[in-house]
Amino acid sequence: MIPNSLDSDRFDPLGGHFNQQGWKMADALRVALAGLGTVGGGVIRLLDTNRDLITRRAGRPIEVVAVSARDRTKDRGVDLSRFDWVDDTAALATHEKADVVVELIGGSDGPALTLARNTLAAGRGFVTANKAMLAHHGLELAQKAEGAGVPLKFEAAVAGGIPVIKGLREGAAANVISNVYGILNGTCNFILSKMEAEGRDFAEVLAEAQALGYAEADPSFDIDGVDAAHKLSILAAIAFGTQPAFDDVAISGIRHVLAADIAEAAALGYRVRLVGVGEAGPHGLFQRVHPHLIPLDHPLAHVTGSTNAVVAQGNFVGRLLFQGAGAGDGPTASAVVADLIDIARGEFGPAFAMPAASLVQEKPADAGERRGRAYLRFTVEDKVGVLAEIAAAMRDAGVSIESLIQRGATAGGGVLVAIVTHEGPERAVAQALERLRGSSSVIGQPLLMHILG
Amino acid sequence: MIPNSLDSDRFDPLGGHFNQQGWKMADALRVALAGLGTVGGGVIRLLDTNRDLITRRAGRPIEVVAVSARDRTKDRGVDLSRFDWVDDTAALATHEKADVVVELIGGSDGPALTLARNTLAAGRGFVTANKAMLAHHGLELAQKAEGAGVPLKFEAAVAGGIPVIKGLREGAAANVISNVYGILNGTCNFILSKMEAEGRDFAEVLAEAQALGYAEADPSFDIDGVDAAHKLSILAAIAFGTQPAFDDVAISGIRHVLAADIAEAAALGYRVRLVGVGEAGPHGLFQRVHPHLIPLDHPLAHVTGSTNAVVAQGNFVGRLLFQGAGAGDGPTASAVVADLIDIARGEFGPAFAMPAASLVQEKPADAGERRGRAYLRFTVEDKVGVLAEIAAAMRDAGVSIESLIQRGATAGGGVLVAIVTHEGPERAVAQALERLRGSSSVIGQPLLMHILG
Repeated sequence: MIPNSLDSDRFDPLGGHFNQQGWKMADALRVALAGLGTVGGGVIRLLDTNRDLITRRAGRPIEVVAVSARDRTKDRGVDLSRFDWVDDTAALATHEKADVVVELIGGSDGPALTLARNTLAAGRGFVTANKAMLAHHGLELAQKAEGAGVPLKFEAAVAGGIPVIKGLREGAAANVISNVYGILNGTCNFILSKMEAEGRDFAEVLAEAQALGYAEADPSFDIDGVDAAHKLSILAAIAFGTQPAFDDVAISGIRHVLAADIAEAAALGYRVRLVGVGEAGPHGLFQRVHPHLIPLDHPLAHVTGSTNAVVAQGNFVGRLLFQGAGAGDGPTASAVVADLIDIARGEFGPAFAMPAASLVQEKPADAGERRGRAYLRFTVEDKVGVLAEIAAAMRDAGVSIESLIQRGATAGGGVLVAIVTHEGPERAVAQALERLRGSSSVIGQPLLMHILG
Repeated sequence: MIPNSLDSDRFDPLGGHFNQQGWKMADALRVALAGLGTVGGGVIRLLDTNRDLITRRAGRPIEVVAVSARDRTKDRGVDLSRFDWVDDTAALATHEKADVVVELIGGSDGPALTLARNTLAAGRGFVTANKAMLAHHGLELAQKAEGAGVPLKFEAAVAGGIPVIKGLREGAAANVISNVYGILNGTCNFILSKMEAEGRDFAEVLAEAQALGYAEADPSFDIDGVDAAHKLSILAAIAFGTQPAFDDVAISGIRHVLAADIAEAAALGYRVRLVGVGEAGPHGLFQRVHPHLIPLDHPLAHVTGSTNAVVAQGNFVGRLLFQGAGAGDGPTASAVVADLIDIARGEFGPAFAMPAASLVQEKPADAGERRGRAYLRFTVEDKVGVLAEIAAAMRDAGVSIESLIQRGATAGGGVLVAIVTHEGPERAVAQALERLRGSSSVIGQPLLMHILG
């Protein structure tokens, strides 16, 4: 039996674009837009620019009917006089003309969350680019959307314009997915690529990225890995059929990566990328955002600048790669409007690829049980016996060293010792680092990067 | 207004997986399977292996109820006794228990086409991996599916397991797509990669690929570019909103690429790949399958072995890349079952992303008007004046030469002359080749490869 995706008692099928004579033009899908920053402006520009094509593809027009933002007077380069201006953003949830609310305000709680809850409660569809809100409240919102029988969609929340939510939710839906990982933060990848290309250190490149508008004035959500972790927790839920579990993501950012680390990695045949990794296994759900060494024969090694890329491994499809622009008004607007087209077509179902009640609450995996290779870098005093101390700590913890390079004095006065380990349990590496924690020879924090693959 | 995707008078909404209490388990989606080759067997294995997960994701079970193939007695490694065996494949179209027919027979006409027409006429859904049939009859079948209000889906027809039909049809749906191109034939890419890695010539590598089962006994559909052209014509229709126009694809294969060409390309910083290119522009629809030189900084240069990859350029999303396994029973089955999950969810609409009546019949673009750079290789007699003759032909046609390399005698006795042109109109290159056609100094056909980008 071929079903309707929605129960016809709740939704008027006359709005549909099929009828007994085949296809017909139906009523417009009417959109209320909350937030008129660069992405909100991009959505309006996109709907204006590609209007006819979108109508052909969606089977009916998609029309913004109402907008709300903080400042009515700001010039956003688009004509807003066509739309109802709503001062109180929360009122969009029950706007009489709207079928769907698009939320581009941001923030995990506050006005965005209130709007989401109220919109779903009012029986309207909800489209958002808000990864923080989904990471923290995705399960609740999915339950509310299903209870109301309305769409909740968020392609723009992960990897900008790349249709990776759809790729996992639908394209790879036939597969048990064992792992999903990728470059999920364009700011970090821009900074790491630039450090690599120009041999410059983190702080300097960050300052330049901020001046150019590629990094926020307060960049910590990006460079400390929180933004990537929000996205990873959403991808993992869809890939593995688990409840979003942002609190279980182990997070490190790129703040402590030196130009020297990137140079050492390059000498060994690797590039450094901030990678979010999710794995589903017999020991639970593993989620980590961490700078990784990527071998040159892996496609992620060739992802430069602010580009994002996501890899998923399925038991029948093998390895899939999705790559494209991870941010920016155009790509993000493209993803938002793709969601609206799906809704206009009536092609939507449960937000996380299966009913919320069917998502498993999976226990977090113990990272110590994982096996892999690692890069360790110490900055040490230039004195006798330091190398022996590090080597002994490795030996005592059972870490087998594949290569060790010691370079002369750094600008800061210390000496760099970079180690690549053989494959072994991560617990051993953690123990070795613990042993060296009290050492008077080691300056500052050692840097640990995992090697992908 | 949020619609149903189907008119409720025609389809019983009780089959749907939404109801007023939220999600419920609904009736199974019942599948009749035509063709039990490696892919057909893969579909059965996949549905068995991932049964529970697929039920959770699809909202209901997907069950094979009937199968048909030429030889009932052949051991396919899967238990077929559970299914109705139907001797007459055509009878699957009206099998009493089936909601959807999956066609894995192949061939542009004959039994596959009959089955497609009859299935749609009987008001059942149709899923196929048959690119040849879609390239030749896709428009007719899309019209029939829409007329009947039933799904026609074919993710497996292009690029195996990669969800690129979905990526264009839905993921990039908000964009005007200016071009779509990619590596669409795994056999050719396997052969070219192996020629590149091992410095061996085409015939030798092809024979080995055939022995290993990576190439068909009759490989012409693959190596002469016809298979890639089938796929390109389907991608172009979805990307550009045009009617599939296989007859307008200009096709060259890889039969005449020498190891020496690959070596020359490598020396210049390029790799050789068979690329299908589609472009929509003011001058019409351009479609070409041709061996190309790919610069090393382009992701397609790093696609090796039987992997496929597709790039699309949208006016808001920018450049999207989809990459993965382009063939094989597992990946192809993954795509077939993804289509079935979409149908089970009720998430489907017009086959080519918009109603068939809305697809434009676009005139083919004149390739001569295109501008680009090209690689030309001549095998010539080792005698005085040959180089002057070639250079004069280029000059007279207005082709500007960027580099020219002449290498000593080949195994066949001739001398290789490889030329890379500056950017210019393709017409000029064609004219230069035309001028040299009668030359007694040039041995055999010159090889022309376009340079991507």
